[in-house]
Amino acid sequence: MTFAKLENDTFLRACNRLATPYTPVWLMRQAGRYLPEYRETRARAGSFMGLATNVDYATEVTLQPLERYPLDAAILFSDILTVPDAMGLGLSFALGEGPKFASPVRDEAAVAALAVPDMEKLRYVFNAVTSIRKALNGRVPLIGFSGSPWTLACYMVEGAGSDDYRLVKTMMYSRPDLMHRMLEVNADAVAAYLNAQIEAGAQAVMIFDSWGGVLADGAFQQFSLAYTARVLSQLKREHDGVFIPRIVFTKGGGLWLKKMGQLDCEVLGLDWTVNLGHARHFVGDHKALQGNLDPNVLFAQPNQIEDEVARVLESFGAPHQGEGTGPTHIFNLGHGISQHSPPENVSVLVNAVHSHSRRQRAMQSAAPE
Amino acid sequence: MTFAKLENDTFLRACNRLATPYTPVWLMRQAGRYLPEYRETRARAGSFMGLATNVDYATEVTLQPLERYPLDAAILFSDILTVPDAMGLGLSFALGEGPKFASPVRDEAAVAALAVPDMEKLRYVFNAVTSIRKALNGRVPLIGFSGSPWTLACYMVEGAGSDDYRLVKTMMYSRPDLMHRMLEVNADAVAAYLNAQIEAGAQAVMIFDSWGGVLADGAFQQFSLAYTARVLSQLKREHDGVFIPRIVFTKGGGLWLKKMGQLDCEVLGLDWTVNLGHARHFVGDHKALQGNLDPNVLFAQPNQIEDEVARVLESFGAPHQGEGTGPTHIFNLGHGISQHSPPENVSVLVNAVHSHSRRQRAMQSAAPE
Repeated sequence: MTFAKLENDTFLRACNRLATPYTPVWLMRQAGRYLPEYRETRARAGSFMGLATNVDYATEVTLQPLERYPLDAAILFSDILTVPDAMGLGLSFALGEGPKFASPVRDEAAVAALAVPDMEKLRYVFNAVTSIRKALNGRVPLIGFSGSPWTLACYMVEGAGSDDYRLVKTMMYSRPDLMHRMLEVNADAVAAYLNAQIEAGAQAVMIFDSWGGVLADGAFQQFSLAYTARVLSQLKREHDGVFIPRIVFTKGGGLWLKKMGQLDCEVLGLDWTVNLGHARHFVGDHKALQGNLDPNVLFAQPNQIEDEVARVLESFGAPHQGEGTGPTHIFNLGHGISQHSPPENVSVLVNAVHSHSRRQRAMQSAAPE
Repeated sequence: MTFAKLENDTFLRACNRLATPYTPVWLMRQAGRYLPEYRETRARAGSFMGLATNVDYATEVTLQPLERYPLDAAILFSDILTVPDAMGLGLSFALGEGPKFASPVRDEAAVAALAVPDMEKLRYVFNAVTSIRKALNGRVPLIGFSGSPWTLACYMVEGAGSDDYRLVKTMMYSRPDLMHRMLEVNADAVAAYLNAQIEAGAQAVMIFDSWGGVLADGAFQQFSLAYTARVLSQLKREHDGVFIPRIVFTKGGGLWLKKMGQLDCEVLGLDWTVNLGHARHFVGDHKALQGNLDPNVLFAQPNQIEDEVARVLESFGAPHQGEGTGPTHIFNLGHGISQHSPPENVSVLVNAVHSHSRRQRAMQSAAPE
């Protein structure tokens, strides 16, 4: 399988801490409900899972934001819960509600029954990856992704979203043996899943630890970070001779950046509570940083969006220029884009990132040594 | 108005960074739905507001947890939204749902109409404070409280709880002038409210910045912290010749501890994501720390609860002993207790705090210099 040559490599260069002429930008959930063309495709597909499991629909919606905006990466359109679904937990999405599992994992027997699923059950995802990569035709790189072992466990035990994580934490505090067993299975499943995405054509992979930040200090290291590390240790480093960068994003993980700086990955994703300059200090310059505009900034006026974009870029500090590796920043939101975002404001954001970050580089080059 | 002499002053001593024979403990929302006697009183009162606005009921439920557990402080039973209710926003609690405002503040006219409410409208709260203080009869000190200006603004704009704070952040990013005006009014109202609680008999006051942690770095300092500081600057330092300690708790505020260490208050409350030892390092030893067990630990087995209590106490490090001021810790949860908590596990927690913290002191005294 050969794919077209990559035209815009700014995202991958920034992942690898190489200089770029501007700061690359993509947005978490960039293919989503805020786009009228997405809502139209979803209506045709009939349901969210109808959209996510159909290769043609998944390809179509993944490319939609790229038709509108000069984004520097595409991300596979899928759901973070495909893996537990393949484990047989029965994923569904009721209209206007979040995900739900028919068979949550709440006792010793249910945990004992868990196993790394046959990856053939997730073939629809890998087929979508290949289809999207072909359709991209080298425009920008394609990011594959998965939920983290802990984040999957939250949904698997709770059976749905939660505001207190009572059930999953009850298992964690009262039966840590069961929780560790579930996280082991999840980690090995996530690693197999991401490796199969890499083989299908993903040019970078991202682990979403969306619920790591709900854990107590101590519990986070033991039940989230350790299993993210277990995933990373099993990931393919390259495919077809090309290095595959790995991104880890823990929402609410700002207090553990020093620890996260030791993960075997290239990029750390950050939410909006973190100051990028402080993060560089804690993480060290051996990792690229991705983030971290508050998605709600997209509800402000264009000039205000431009100001906030500039503030985030400036908070990172001087971008790396010239030869070799150095500190690099990939612009993103600090969390997924809201379904209520005005699409025209996303244009403002993307253009502001490109133009302000070019100006930053020009001013830096012009500055006296 | 004179009250009985205080018998158990460990909480107030710890607030003032004075040594205590053990680590004092109280729990956020300790008078609440997890207690069957609370549910019984609430059923008699007919509604949550019926409970909160009736002096006798409020007194009764405030004292209920003290009958069961050897807690070291009582906290006024009330709601954080009494102040915006007094501003005329129309607070209500639908059964099984969170608070709701009939008239949320969403435009320039609504913001312009806001004013510090006549404190007479909140007389029921101050009467409850006096009644509770009398009923306590000196057993333990009484803590008064309020929501922070930012946290009140979240509810005032959203009209209810929110999972993305879209409306309040839209106002903040697009009309910062309106947001600043609302926060000014809120800060002055909160200061008047807390001062009146102090005059009515509150022996310490706490500001709950429950939603400070949803703000971006930069926005937190400007829209939450600055107005908490504005409240603190207006608070009475003493009443009847006794110093009144002030506690500030920002849920999710762990990344801003250094800044919060500069607040003019005696105690910082911390959620469970923060390591107490690290917090001491960032805050400095000029403030007492309060917290920070994950409330979900109360769903574990007794021996596991004891272990987690010990871990939190040990994470703070050696408690201050002897003369003068030094680092002190007030044990608490990192957030309000869950309504599903088994009441017998709260006994385990309180006893574990007292016994383990006495042991810590004994071992420290016995240790060779």
